[in-house]
This record gives sequence, structure tokens and C-alpha cells, in this order.
Amino acid sequence: MSASIAAHPDRLLPADPGTRSIARALLALVEDLPIVSPHGHVDARVLAENTPFPDPTGLLISPDHYVTRLLHANGVALADLGVGGAPDTDPREAWRIFCRHWGLFDGTASGYWLRSEFVNVFGIDDALIGAEHADELYDRLQSLVGQPEFRPRALFERFGLEVMATTDDPLDDLAAHARLAADRTFAGRVLPTFRPDAYVKFSGAGFAEKAHRLIDTAGDGSTGYAGYLHALQNRRAHFLAHGAVSADHGTLTARTLKLDAAEAGRLFEKGLRGEATAEEAEAFEASMTYQFARMAVEDGLVMTLHPGVHRNHSPETFARHGADSGHDIPFAMEYTRALQPLLADFGTAENFHLVLFTIDETVFSREIAPLAGFYPSVYVGAPWWFIDEPDAMLRFRSAVTGTAGFSRSSGFIDDTRAFCSIPARHDASRRTEASFLARLVAEHRISEERAAEIIVDVVDAAPRRAFKL
Amino acid sequence: MSASIAAHPDRLLPADPGTRSIARALLALVEDLPIVSPHGHVDARVLAENTPFPDPTGLLISPDHYVTRLLHANGVALADLGVGGAPDTDPREAWRIFCRHWGLFDGTASGYWLRSEFVNVFGIDDALIGAEHADELYDRLQSLVGQPEFRPRALFERFGLEVMATTDDPLDDLAAHARLAADRTFAGRVLPTFRPDAYVKFSGAGFAEKAHRLIDTAGDGSTGYAGYLHALQNRRAHFLAHGAVSADHGTLTARTLKLDAAEAGRLFEKGLRGEATAEEAEAFEASMTYQFARMAVEDGLVMTLHPGVHRNHSPETFARHGADSGHDIPFAMEYTRALQPLLADFGTAENFHLVLFTIDETVFSREIAPLAGFYPSVYVGAPWWFIDEPDAMLRFRSAVTGTAGFSRSSGFIDDTRAFCSIPARHDASRRTEASFLARLVAEHRISEERAAEIIVDVVDAAPRRAFKL
Amino acid sequence: MSASIAAHPDRLLPADPGTRSIARALLALVEDLPIVSPHGHVDARVLAENTPFPDPTGLLISPDHYVTRLLHANGVALADLGVGGAPDTDPREAWRIFCRHWGLFDGTASGYWLRSEFVNVFGIDDALIGAEHADELYDRLQSLVGQPEFRPRALFERFGLEVMATTDDPLDDLAAHARLAADRTFAGRVLPTFRPDAYVKFSGAGFAEKAHRLIDTAGDGSTGYAGYLHALQNRRAHFLAHGAVSADHGTLTARTLKLDAAEAGRLFEKGLRGEATAEEAEAFEASMTYQFARMAVEDGLVMTLHPGVHRNHSPETFARHGADSGHDIPFAMEYTRALQPLLADFGTAENFHLVLFTIDETVFSREIAPLAGFYPSVYVGAPWWFIDEPDAMLRFRSAVTGTAGFSRSSGFIDDTRAFCSIPARHDASRRTEASFLARLVAEHRISEERAAEIIVDVVDAAPRRAFKL
Repeated sequence: MSASIAAHPDRLLPADPGTRSIARALLALVEDLPIVSPHGHVDARVLAENTPFPDPTGLLISPDHYVTRLLHANGVALADLGVGGAPDTDPREAWRIFCRHWGLFDGTASGYWLRSEFVNVFGIDDALIGAEHADELYDRLQSLVGQPEFRPRALFERFGLEVMATTDDPLDDLAAHARLAADRTFAGRVLPTFRPDAYVKFSGAGFAEKAHRLIDTAGDGSTGYAGYLHALQNRRAHFLAHGAVSADHGTLTARTLKLDAAEAGRLFEKGLRGEATAEEAEAFEASMTYQFARMAVEDGLVMTLHPGVHRNHSPETFARHGADSGHDIPFAMEYTRALQPLLADFGTAENFHLVLFTIDETVFSREIAPLAGFYPSVYVGAPWWFIDEPDAMLRFRSAVTGTAGFSRSSGFIDDTRAFCSIPARHDASRRTEASFLARLVAEHRISEERAAEIIVDVVDAAPRRAFKL
Repeated sequence: MSASIAAHPDRLLPADPGTRSIARALLALVEDLPIVSPHGHVDARVLAENTPFPDPTGLLISPDHYVTRLLHANGVALADLGVGGAPDTDPREAWRIFCRHWGLFDGTASGYWLRSEFVNVFGIDDALIGAEHADELYDRLQSLVGQPEFRPRALFERFGLEVMATTDDPLDDLAAHARLAADRTFAGRVLPTFRPDAYVKFSGAGFAEKAHRLIDTAGDGSTGYAGYLHALQNRRAHFLAHGAVSADHGTLTARTLKLDAAEAGRLFEKGLRGEATAEEAEAFEASMTYQFARMAVEDGLVMTLHPGVHRNHSPETFARHGADSGHDIPFAMEYTRALQPLLADFGTAENFHLVLFTIDETVFSREIAPLAGFYPSVYVGAPWWFIDEPDAMLRFRSAVTGTAGFSRSSGFIDDTRAFCSIPARHDASRRTEASFLARLVAEHRISEERAAEIIVDVVDAAPRRAFKL
Repeated sequence: MSASIAAHPDRLLPADPGTRSIARALLALVEDLPIVSPHGHVDARVLAENTPFPDPTGLLISPDHYVTRLLHANGVALADLGVGGAPDTDPREAWRIFCRHWGLFDGTASGYWLRSEFVNVFGIDDALIGAEHADELYDRLQSLVGQPEFRPRALFERFGLEVMATTDDPLDDLAAHARLAADRTFAGRVLPTFRPDAYVKFSGAGFAEKAHRLIDTAGDGSTGYAGYLHALQNRRAHFLAHGAVSADHGTLTARTLKLDAAEAGRLFEKGLRGEATAEEAEAFEASMTYQFARMAVEDGLVMTLHPGVHRNHSPETFARHGADSGHDIPFAMEYTRALQPLLADFGTAENFHLVLFTIDETVFSREIAPLAGFYPSVYVGAPWWFIDEPDAMLRFRSAVTGTAGFSRSSGFIDDTRAFCSIPARHDASRRTEASFLARLVAEHRISEERAAEIIVDVVDAAPRRAFKL
């Protein structure tokens, strides 16, 4: 057994010996359960094609904006890390930079995942990470990813992944998903997720072109707003036919608005012509959040909503490195009043599931737990993005449980592009759940028997229930 | 002694053995002190008439929107639980539904209280709760509530209730309170609380009719706004004469506004005619919050304020089941600027007490503790409604103590309709106070001697001080 | 060794014995390191002149609005405490009042610091504090402050202060700083800090007069806005020449705005004439925050920003006792969108340092850690003012570390007027850092070796790095 902290059996468990001992027993019940990952950003082609992962930098650094952003904050140029397809980056040199700065990641979620990947996925002694052994580590990883047991499908199986959802453009043909579904040698379920944001935000790059293509490709022949709605519904049907269980919406705010077709159509046309004001663009997005809920009630796709992020905060970095380059910054969110129009009409609709995510922790006790503790449609989304780390996950449980108990949880969401980090993320979540429940047991607030049932429920049954899996 | 966790002597105390031992010693000092309950929603007639409680469902389920809301979120129709006087509900069938879903309440505040009621009030083994023994439990409870020692007054005495405030309509004749006060066989104090919200909110059901009745019944003969203010003052005097110590205000926001009489009168007339805009309704409410503070300075009633809840969030549920049916949802609150006009004029007024409640936990360290740490009139309201559970109560103490210490607390507020839950709620609060103080002692931040003085002060003296009892 | 809790070697360390033992070892590494205090409010003349401190009330009570505000909240008149130069206050009587109310401070940050000052600075048994021994304590302190080893410079040395920054008016001649720098008998560094708020806020007392004086005294001969900008830049150069490392900005909000010179000049002229609206005043302040960032990029002064406080909340108290009399109250703050214009232009500028402080804890995980985890210019300011106490400091580390790790911290900021409290404040911070890191070690999240490196870094290197010391 490795002496690394990443392999310590008590990692993330509470320090108090009595509580830790309860947590250990709870963890043992779920530690080896299969992984259900109902929302993430791995590309289905990675599994469909099953080609070896690239070099260590391309695998672990360049595409992971959690990692590159903290290096950037400490003075590293993103171009030197290969972010956003920077052309001339030397992957080995980028790797050396990362190794020199490894200490920056102590205490961070990314550091926890990376260390776990090194130790638990690749069997590497994490004492090697650092400037001194950078090249040795690079060569070791490079050689490993070339081996059959480190190809994507082999890892998928080793990780115990049962279900993994991807996130896809509405016009994606989903060929990779179809290929995987048809492949009898691959037992996992890889499900597409419908993500229409780019077809809703007037200010997005190429909105009009995208919307026209959507209507032309997937509509029913009608033009304008009517054709647009039809096309979206048709593509949802296409996703459903390929196994999709949910549609994901990254809106600016949680605002929802019921507009009549004429008014919505007027806004849509202004958006297409590039003449809509910022207020009109927000109103249209809010009206579409309402429309997507209506569609979800009709077709049964689970609706996930994660508003509240100022995308591409640094225009200079966006110009150089494109989207998802590490400067999406959260801001305060409001759900109670924003969602009222949607929930007034669909909150108690049969079979409607609305999973509310947030990066603004203040809404957990104030808004989301009260909403999920009343509306049968509303699920409390697990802590997400900047707050999917152990302390924040404990704060989350502490914030929502008194009001909503355990039954209204979405289950853990890894939401990751970093395929090799999936086991570490789910493991961290399971350890955190065990820690939280162990405290309640130690404080005689729930019985050990019930805690045992609850941990299996929140780890395994909750995501299946919330995402209709 | 029961083996239930609800009877465990260390329930809710911190897991660390050293800290727990300190907490036990502190708890022992307050565990048996009488209960002072300066704000709640039990009907005084329950005690005045002392009739037996109804069936178990009518006692513990139907009227408790904490309980029915979580069942509803998990797919139970409110009508099947007898919410809002649903006509054809079979109480025994509702009870079976509750028992089948008992596991939902693990970890929730309601679950903690209910379990404690079963075990500590009714002497029932909580292992019985569940689908299997639902009828047995129902029959057992039904038989108990018929016995003399489970009548309201007997329980009042058994619970060690010394003072219990009710919440009453300004036009209530307070006959039940008078009857209790005059009854030499009843030693408790049951005090009315003046709650004028329905006479202030233009959008409330029947506002104009209520306001006219108020002016006609209680005014000094003058009409319009002047008569309205006089009538409110007269009714406050009536409440004071019946032992009231406080007036309670459930406003939409914390906004306060000093309007001259002409402007306020103009808004009032528009409100009566149903012609006021939402902005005008809010302005009038804000101006009345200011006026109620002025009256409190004059007549000495303690002013309690609890803004920040979107009432009746689901219009469909409201139409079917009326108010208080479980879908009042909090939203973010602001106090610093909202209260400035009121505090500028009355913040240092002799004998003015303003207790600020919140469900938005973010204001504890940011706004309420700083306000209460300066203004002699401002008291920090205990965590209320969705946040009156152990974890949130610990977060509350952690948030306010560094700035405001312990002297500015309102003391615990149970705010409950559920009479039988009162001891469990106060017990949970006392255990939480002991836990918090024990940690400070364990960390050598306060001495054990001072902790002993402080816990007696916050449990017993604080509510008497804040509410002038 | 004193039996006081203030002298207990384990004070503020976590109760769990295993974690405490780790914390002790970590604390030992930093407990005796020199104090670096890059932001505070001690007057440089106190050290330049090295005159004895005044009476105990003048030393510990009257000027400390943390102390006087809580006494005021509990019914003590500020005039009786000598606040704001109240003319006829008897210092001994004020001292007696303080001693009678000593129990109010249990659990507060002020109480912790005061107790530590009594015990660890003055060698006084804190059991003496209270009504009974008030005069004895007064006399004892009075006699001590007259002794050479309690003069400011002797204490500066005893405290292990290496660097201490003051906060100064832009037109201050900085003679006291110059005198200290030239004095070969004084080894400490006492650095001025440029604080231009009074020259930016139109609504401040005497704004126009101050701005005219600034332009006349320090400008380059040009008038109006151009002269104003020049004068500010000239004074910054004057501060730099006297050792300043930072400029401090107490803005109303975090809003930043890039205005062209003509528009900014128009607002400035309206401000001078007293004709600007509140909106215009805010816009001008926002534009100046942008301008000060531009200047910081050019001249290298570190920029510290601490918005979000409603100053002088009680007009009556302000009229009687002036500013800083205890009723500055925080409100909710927003940074993500407010700072975007500034960060868009300067966020990645070479050598620009922007330290973001907040009293609104909600922004730590939501906004500040994400910003500091991307922009190389942004540092996470330590918890400040109402939240610079142990629990809030632990919440702070818990909130930011998962996203930003430890490298982006400003280091501890005492921000104090109370010279004798400086060691207690830094000691509390070091103990809190040890406690937080010890928990991560106990949970196997970081290694003990790395924790040892990190605590030295956050205590000693971080403030030097963030403040270019």
C-alpha cells in the first residue's frame, strides 16, 4: 500500500476518533458501489474511438481549467500550458512548469483529485511530483497511457463507471453515443445531454447562424419562433432516442418568464437581427427557461439549471484562449422569485424533475432547501464547480438537511472534463457523506442503522431517482 | 430509560469527548429551567377550553406545515393529509401515509421534534414508527390524548411552561387570554401578541374590509389614515391591558420609510380603493413599519420583525389549501440600509426593543450582529423557521458572538403551532447553547465559570430581558 | 505562568486531542516570528515622539470603537466613555463602567484581545477585571504606562514588530515617518499608506475645500480634473518616497467605471460645486477606483479595497461624537461584475497587486477565491473588521482554500488603532492558521511536512509578497 495521503484509508474522514470509526463503517457500505455520473463533460468519442490518451500535459493540464487557472494566478502564461489550443506549447515544458508549482495545489480540490489520480489511477508515488522529477514523471505517465489497460474503455471499466452522461450540442448527430450503444463489447451506458445555451443567448458567438441552422435542419418547415420551438423539441426527441435523460441549462440568472408567442417571437427576431438590447436578451433567455420546463413536462427530460456565472470575465484572455479558459466567475444568485413563474405552472407537474445547482452557497438553506422541501419537482443539486470540494460539501449538507432531509438530493455530480479524475471525485463525495452522517450518528441525531440506509440511498439511489436512470 | 436516540442524555452534544463532558455540565445547569416562550402560534383557546387534543393526525400532521411540506415534496397530496381543512381526509389513512414516509424526516428539525414528542411526551417507542405499526401507534396516541394528563393544561404544566405568547389578530377580543388570566387554577402566563400584518398589506385578502372594520370598531371617530393610526394604537392598548409584551411584524422586506401624514394617507386611500401599485403597497408597508416603531417607543411593546419570505409561492396550492400550507419560501434580505430611517429616529430611544429575525443567515455576521452591537434597542433574534435546527443554531452563534457577544440575544423562540413540540424545541436549543459554549471553553476562549453564567443568562434571562417579561 | 486562559498554551487550538497536537507543532514554527503589519491605524507620531501612553481609558477604551460600541449597545452613553473627545469625561469613572461591564465581552474578539493585553502585555491577572477591583486595576495600569518599558518604542520592540504601516491623509507631510526612518536608534519600519477617500467622496465633509487644497498644494499647475489627477499622482510619489507600499481605498461599493476625461471632469466639477446627485457621486467614485488602479500599475503601490460599509449609520451619534464612533454597519457586497471593468484592463498587468477585503463573508467562496484563483493581480484579503475573529477566520480559510489554495492570501491584517492589541491579534491569527492546517493534516488532506511549510508561508511570506515588503 502506498504511504501517500491519497491512499490513506481515513482520508477526508473526521478527526475525532469516535466519529471517524462510525464514518469508516458507513464508507465501507458505499466505497465500491458503481459510479453513476449523470452530468459531465467528457467527449463520447473518447470512449467510442478508445484511442490512447495523449501526453500527460494534454491529459491532465491543458484542458483542465481548474488547474491552469491557479497556475495563471501565480504568474504562468496560459500559452505556456497549452490552453485553448495554444499552438507552440511544448507539452514537456508545460509539464515541468506544473511540477514546479505543484505546491500551489495543496488544500485545493484540484490538488486532491490530481494526487489521487497519480497514486490511485496511475500507481505513481506522489513524492515524485516536483521540479526535480518532472521529466521522470512525464515519461512514466507517457508510457502508461500507451498501455492497453490505460485506454479509455479499460479505465471506464476499472473505475466502476456504470452510467456516464456527456454534454452535447443540440445539433450533434450523437453518432458516438449510437456507436457505443450498439457495441456489444462495451457494457457502460454513455448518455448524451441536451445543452441548448448557444441557441438561446443572443450575445453568444454566431447566435443567428446557429439558430437559422437549427430551424433549417431540425424544424418542421415553419419559420421564426414557431419553427425554432419545433426544432428544439425535435432535437430533444433525437436526444431521447439516443438515451438522453436530461437537458442542461447554463443561464445567466434563474429568471423565468411566461411570454406569449407573439412577444417571444418579436424578441427572437430582434435577436436574430442583432438588434436586441441586453434586457431583451435576458427576457428571451428567461422565457426560454420557462419553455424548456414546459418541454420537459411533455417529454420527460430532467431539467438541470445552473445560473450565476459571469462567463469570460477577462476579455483579453478570452480573445487569446477562447471560452472555458479559467475566468468564469460566479456572482450572487436568486431563485425564490426568479423561478416562481416556472414553478407556479410546472412545480407540481407529474414527472417533472428540476435540479437546481448553485455556486452561491447562501441559497442552500435560504432558497433551495425550502423549494425542494415543498415542490415534488425540485431536487437539490449537489455542490458544483468551485464548491465541489470536501469542506463545501459538508457545508452544503449542513445547510440543507435540517429543512429538506436527504431525500431531495440530486446525488453527486462530477461535472468534469477530466476523465481520470472521476473516481477521485466520487470517492471524495462518498467520504464526505460518510463524515456528515457519522457526525449526526455521534450526536445521536440519527441511528447508525438509518445512517447506513441513507448513505446507500444518497450515493446510489439518489442520482438514479433524480435523473430517471 | 428508553433506548431511543431521542432519550439519549448526550443527544446533540459535540462528539469530541472532552468537549462533550463540558457541554454535559453546562446543560445540567439549564436543562430543567422553566420554559419562557415569548413568540409562538398556539391558540389561547386550546388552553382556555382545555379540551382534549383531536386525533393524532390533527394533533401532529395536518396543522404542521413543516411536516406536510416534506411529505408533499415526496409525492403525497396535501389533501390526503388534511391540510387546509381538506374535507374528506381520513385521519387514520393520513397517519398511515405519514408512518410510511417517516424515514424522510431523518436529519430534519421536524424529525427531531416529532421523535422527541413520541418518546419524551407520549412515552412511545420510536421503533414503532413505520408502515408496519401505523395503526397500533395511531390507536395508542388516540387513547393517550383522551387521558387527563395529556390535556393541554396538564401538558403546559408538565412541560414547565412559565410564559407562552400567542399571535393574534388586532381585533381579537382576547377573551381566551382574559379567561386564563382570571383562572386561579391555571398558573401559567399566556400572553397575546399584536400582529397587524393583515391590516397593512394592500394585497392581502379583504384588506379594505379589514381596515374599515378596524377604523369603525377601534378608532376615535376620525376617518381615513388618522382614524386608522388611532385604531391601531387603541388596539395595542387593548393588547397591553391583556398582558401583551410584543407586537409582531411579518413584512415583505425590512424597508422602513418616514412619510408625512398626507402622503401616507394618500397611499392608504389608494390601497383601500384597490388602486395602489405594488410599489405604493411596499412604500405604505415600509412607512407602517416606521409607524409601528414610533408606537412601540410610546407604548413599550417590544417590536419583532421577520421579513424576507415570499408567501404562498404556489398559487395552485394556495387556491386549494389556503395560507400556511408549506410554500412560503425565503429570499435574500437587507437590513443595514432598510432599517436606517427607523433606527436613525428610534435606535437609541429609551426602552425601545426591536428584535430582528432572519431566515437569510448571511445577515447574522454582516448586518444584525453589527447593528445589535451598537444600538441599545436592537436584539439579535434567534434562528427562526427554516433555520431553527441544531446546525443552523450553531452557525448562528458562531456568526454573531465575535461581534455582539451573548448579551444581545433574544433568547430562543419556538414560533410554533405544534404545542407538543415546545419542550423538544427548547431542549434542542439548550443543548446547542451548551455545545457552542463548551467548544469555547475547550478552546480556552472563555472560562468554565463564565460559560456557566452565560448559559443560564441566554436560556433564562435573555428572553425575559428582550421581551420585558 | 499565569493561570489565565489568555496565557494557556493551547488557547484557540482545536479541542480534538489529535488535531490539537498537530496544531501545537505547527504553531511552534511561527509563534515567535516577527510581526509584519501591512495595514493599520496607529499614528506614526506615537512612535516618533515616543511619549508615554495616556491613562488606561485613553489607551484601551475611548479610541477603540469595537469596545465602546458594545458598551453603548448595553446602555452606556458614549459620552461617559470619552468617545469622540467628549469633553468632561472622567477617565477613572469610564474605566469603572468598563470594568462593571467586562462580562459583555466574553466570546467577542475585543474581549479576547483585551484579556490578552492585560495578561500578556501588562502582566495583570485578568481575575482582577470587574467592578470590585476597577480602581486597583486602573492605578496599576496607570503606573505601568509611565514606565520606560511600556513606552511605544519599547513595546514595538517587545512585540517583535518588524514592519508597521499607518494610514494617512494624502496631504500629510509624513514628517513622523521621515523622523523614524532617519532615527538610527529605531530599527522598525513604519510605513505610510496613501488613503485618498476624503478627496474622492463628494458627500464627505469639506470635499470641495479638500480637493481644491490638494490641487493647489500638490498639482502641476493645471486646474480641474487634470490637476486633481496630477496632484494625486504627485502625492503617491511623495508617499512612495517615504516608504509607502500601498494605497488604501474605503469605497462605498466595489464598482469600477472607465470614464473618459471629459465626462469624469464634468462630474468632478459638479462635485466641487455641490451639485452632483448621489448617482453621479457614486459614478465618480467608481471611476476613481479605476483611476487608482491605473496609477497603481504605473507606480507600483499595492491597491487595497474594502467596500461595503454604511458609515455613520446613526446621524444623532455622528453629530455628537463624529466618525468612527461605532456605527459603521456592513451591507452585502458584489465584486464579480463591479470589478470587471478594472480587471479587464489591469487584471493581468505586470506587478499590479489588488487586495480585496470584505466583511460580507458570502463573497469568499463565491467571488473572491475564484477571482484570486485566476487573476495574478488579485489577492484574497484576510477577514477584516467585524470578521477578524477566530471562528470567522476559520470560515474564511474553509471558504477560499478549495478554490485558491494558500498562495493567494494577503496574510493577516490587524487594521487596528489599538497598538497594544497588535500582538494578540497576530497571535490569534497564527493559532487559527495552525488550527485550520492541523485539521487538513488530521484528515490526510495535506502532509504534515507541507503544512509546516505552508504555515510559515502564510504567516511570514504572504504579507511580504502581497504588499511587496
